[in-house]
Amino acid sequence: MDEREAARRRVEDHWRAAAFIVEMGYRLERVEPGRVDSHLLVQPRHLQQHGFVHAGVLTTMADHTGGAAASTLIQAGQSVMTAEFKVNFLRPAKGDRLRCTATVLKPGRTLSVTEAEVWSLAGEERKLVVKGIFTMAVVHGDVVL
Amino acid sequence: MDEREAARRRVEDHWRAAAFIVEMGYRLERVEPGRVDSHLLVQPRHLQQHGFVHAGVLTTMADHTGGAAASTLIQAGQSVMTAEFKVNFLRPAKGDRLRCTATVLKPGRTLSVTEAEVWSLAGEERKLVVKGIFTMAVVHGDVVL
Amino acid sequence: MDEREAARRRVEDHWRAAAFIVEMGYRLERVEPGRVDSHLLVQPRHLQQHGFVHAGVLTTMADHTGGAAASTLIQAGQSVMTAEFKVNFLRPAKGDRLRCTATVLKPGRTLSVTEAEVWSLAGEERKLVVKGIFTMAVVHGDVVL
Amino acid sequence: MDEREAARRRVEDHWRAAAFIVEMGYRLERVEPGRVDSHLLVQPRHLQQHGFVHAGVLTTMADHTGGAAASTLIQAGQSVMTAEFKVNFLRPAKGDRLRCTATVLKPGRTLSVTEAEVWSLAGEERKLVVKGIFTMAVVHGDVVL
Repeated sequence: MDEREAARRRVEDHWRAAAFIVEMGYRLERVEPGRVDSHLLVQPRHLQQHGFVHAGVLTTMADHTGGAAASTLIQAGQSVMTAEFKVNFLRPAKGDRLRCTATVLKPGRTLSVTEAEVWSLAGEERKLVVKGIFTMAVVHGDVVL
Repeated sequence: MDEREAARRRVEDHWRAAAFIVEMGYRLERVEPGRVDSHLLVQPRHLQQHGFVHAGVLTTMADHTGGAAASTLIQAGQSVMTAEFKVNFLRPAKGDRLRCTATVLKPGRTLSVTEAEVWSLAGEERKLVVKGIFTMAVVHGDVVL
Repeated sequence: MDEREAARRRVEDHWRAAAFIVEMGYRLERVEPGRVDSHLLVQPRHLQQHGFVHAGVLTTMADHTGGAAASTLIQAGQSVMTAEFKVNFLRPAKGDRLRCTATVLKPGRTLSVTEAEVWSLAGEERKLVVKGIFTMAVVHGDVVL
Repeated sequence: MDEREAARRRVEDHWRAAAFIVEMGYRLERVEPGRVDSHLLVQPRHLQQHGFVHAGVLTTMADHTGGAAASTLIQAGQSVMTAEFKVNFLRPAKGDRLRCTATVLKPGRTLSVTEAEVWSLAGEERKLVVKGIFTMAVVHGDVVL
């Protein structure tokens, strides 16, 4: 098994091991070194009081997909934890599906910086609804920040 | 009904109207002008792959409580939408309960800036796990960013 | 004079009218609708205690260039003020020149969101040293946040 | 010389060693473990095009004071570099003096998180103009991110 395939399996295993991600319905779509995409079928339980997708649903997707992208570039025995992130909400998310793409801006031994976008999809239409930057701490062995 | 009571009811109504917030189990705890607290009983479905509360659960709580705090200081016919936020994760959240306190730093006609903290509680112990700043757009009438 | 040329002149006028920007030595390089580039010749007075360009020099450049980009897409009689920004420092800036490119992610009536990158240049080498997102308030008439 | 005094001297030495900080005129005002204050006499060269203090002057102050606060809690042979920060501008800064207070939220072996406020002062009046959160990388020996 080559390194690329190992990274892919590591991401898939971690995705399935995160109870909250499974519960929410996020799905992995693409795993490449330094790049991960995911998607979500929007359900009524994901909405806020105006009928748009809740900001928390959008940022959970961006954060977890960003962490997955960072983890494609770490070594065996390491994992990543979100140290901080920041996101702008560009438009209300009204679509019936979401797609997130996360790309590593700068991998590192102790910090990995990732940017992520979330797109709202409805029919042929796609709109950028979230853009954010995520700083991940690379953790060696025991997971303690 | 005085203004303070009107603000309290508006916050409670919006809290209940947000499907995602109800689904997740967040509860309002305190509503004062410019300040809202909330709490959450942590359940296995809220966790990530290392057994800590998922970053998305923490930030959803901070974002929604921050929005509620901002909405205590707006006028009838207005509502708030998150324009952007940023959060630091100071420690892994290992407790069985979370408490969030959100305070308005600067109310405004078009933007309201709020800071929020999330504390992880276990027995008598409480630890600050998230600190963040939230910029809310004050929306007049139709909810369009 | 067409709209594009009007926007260009407005940006140039504002650039020259900002005492701090002139004092620091930042220069406009390119002005297009939704996109502005700038550059700086690094001088000893721009450095911090380790001999790298100070974070404040980098972010001032990104902020002001971001504001200029936002102001290419506003109307006559409007101006922009920075509401908030966030930046990651990806590598120490060791070069003798800096280039900044700022692009509008989402123009708006009340808020304009811009992303900016700062590159450190030395000979043929160029390295991305800063990436950030900037939220600008669009101000009508009197400049009051 | 006790540890507190050693931290104070380290901060003062680093402050003087940062050419940009000296050039700008920022002054250290108070150094305690986990807390540093600074001030600035506003000069015409610090202003932007509307006559307010430039955002870059405010954030440079907050960043450098935040770094100084973080460096009061590190060990000999270590230093700090800004990994990222985010700031909100709450009101235009119109005063003739600025004061910044920075407090460490969470010290750490590899990351130190600090919050900082900048106040604009004019006569007896003081207004909060900036609030931000700063993530500092603790660097051991060679300064390489």
